[in-house]
Amino acid sequence: MLTEQDQLKKLVGQEAAHYIKDGMKIGLGSGSTVYWMIKMLGERVKEGLHIEGIPSSNQTAEWAKEFGVPLTDFSKVEGLDVTIDGADEVDGNLNLVKGGGGALFREKVIAKAAKELIIIVDESKVVEKLGDFPLPVEVLPFGWEMTAAKIKELGCELTVRSKDNEVYVTDNGNYILDCQFGKIENPEMLDQELIQIVGVVETGLFTNMTDKVIVGSKDKVSLLERK
Amino acid sequence: MLTEQDQLKKLVGQEAAHYIKDGMKIGLGSGSTVYWMIKMLGERVKEGLHIEGIPSSNQTAEWAKEFGVPLTDFSKVEGLDVTIDGADEVDGNLNLVKGGGGALFREKVIAKAAKELIIIVDESKVVEKLGDFPLPVEVLPFGWEMTAAKIKELGCELTVRSKDNEVYVTDNGNYILDCQFGKIENPEMLDQELIQIVGVVETGLFTNMTDKVIVGSKDKVSLLERK
Repeated sequence: MLTEQDQLKKLVGQEAAHYIKDGMKIGLGSGSTVYWMIKMLGERVKEGLHIEGIPSSNQTAEWAKEFGVPLTDFSKVEGLDVTIDGADEVDGNLNLVKGGGGALFREKVIAKAAKELIIIVDESKVVEKLGDFPLPVEVLPFGWEMTAAKIKELGCELTVRSKDNEVYVTDNGNYILDCQFGKIENPEMLDQELIQIVGVVETGLFTNMTDKVIVGSKDKVSLLERK
Repeated sequence: MLTEQDQLKKLVGQEAAHYIKDGMKIGLGSGSTVYWMIKMLGERVKEGLHIEGIPSSNQTAEWAKEFGVPLTDFSKVEGLDVTIDGADEVDGNLNLVKGGGGALFREKVIAKAAKELIIIVDESKVVEKLGDFPLPVEVLPFGWEMTAAKIKELGCELTVRSKDNEVYVTDNGNYILDCQFGKIENPEMLDQELIQIVGVVETGLFTNMTDKVIVGSKDKVSLLERK
């Protein structure tokens, strides 16, 4: 029995699968909403759809194998037609906070590599301004303490993400700092300031990248498009 | 029997050790010139000098252990008094190209963490404009092909660094792209453009960071200082 929120995730995940056409190379995001999209894609592949996906996490790769979605990688394809992914927050300009699941770097790579970025969320993720969700920032382990001190100077509190009482390590072997900036007035500027700090690999701010957002709310699915 | 160039490296490495005072926390760079500095520091430690160093590579850590220079790390110290390191190129504004040895990220961390950055080179490294030495750029393995394509758009030829017929992997688990831009007119701008490309961890351009350069040339050691 799915919760109401999970029902919405299933709804938009399945809806997103309709945007996939025969022959497409697809960036496969991460997270529970993407799970439903991959499951639906697997059904369409069984019906004859020819596609290939590049996964943004080990978990996504496992789901793709489970549901029969063929995978490829960047040594074989030069770009992607579309990337479909979830988000932790979406604002009115379609800027995003991502990385709650820890896969933000690979998610940004597949987002940047695609001609079109489609984000799928339930309505709880749509906000006026980004920042209630702590911003995940991926940093290299060596000297992370120095990196954290520099990030704090930009005006935030932060915690090192942990899992089972150990420091959480990303698929790339790095750490995640969850940074509580409060409301983020200028996401693009903050992203640029963060990325220039030595030790920062990538931030969870995805600005000026999203083309469409499919939002699931009670009784309906709505579409936000880039202005 | 040392070559003439190795004699110069030894000369400036030993000279640099004189800048170290009792009680200092020191960033220890990498490479053959730094080797001589660490060896000299080891002798001074035996004579009673109390210092601690943070190494920028596994090789440097081994030399420090061999010569008896005590090591620490960023979980125990909040900053460094001085960092001493080599360089592949130094221009008239004391901007550097580094990373020929592959340790550029950790070298940049210890350079940024220090109150003073002292660079030690033989005279062959001093150039009018940076860029004859291919610029090393450290990139994450996932999607490095996309990262390389974006870097090429800035106007360079590049090769993936290899060692013993395998892709070279840094101490951080990443790859190095050696980028031939030719003469670099504006090192600071190029560094900022590169660092904003998704997948770029750090570049070998060290701009506006160096305080002193100790240059070894035949018969003499000279000192360049930041204007």
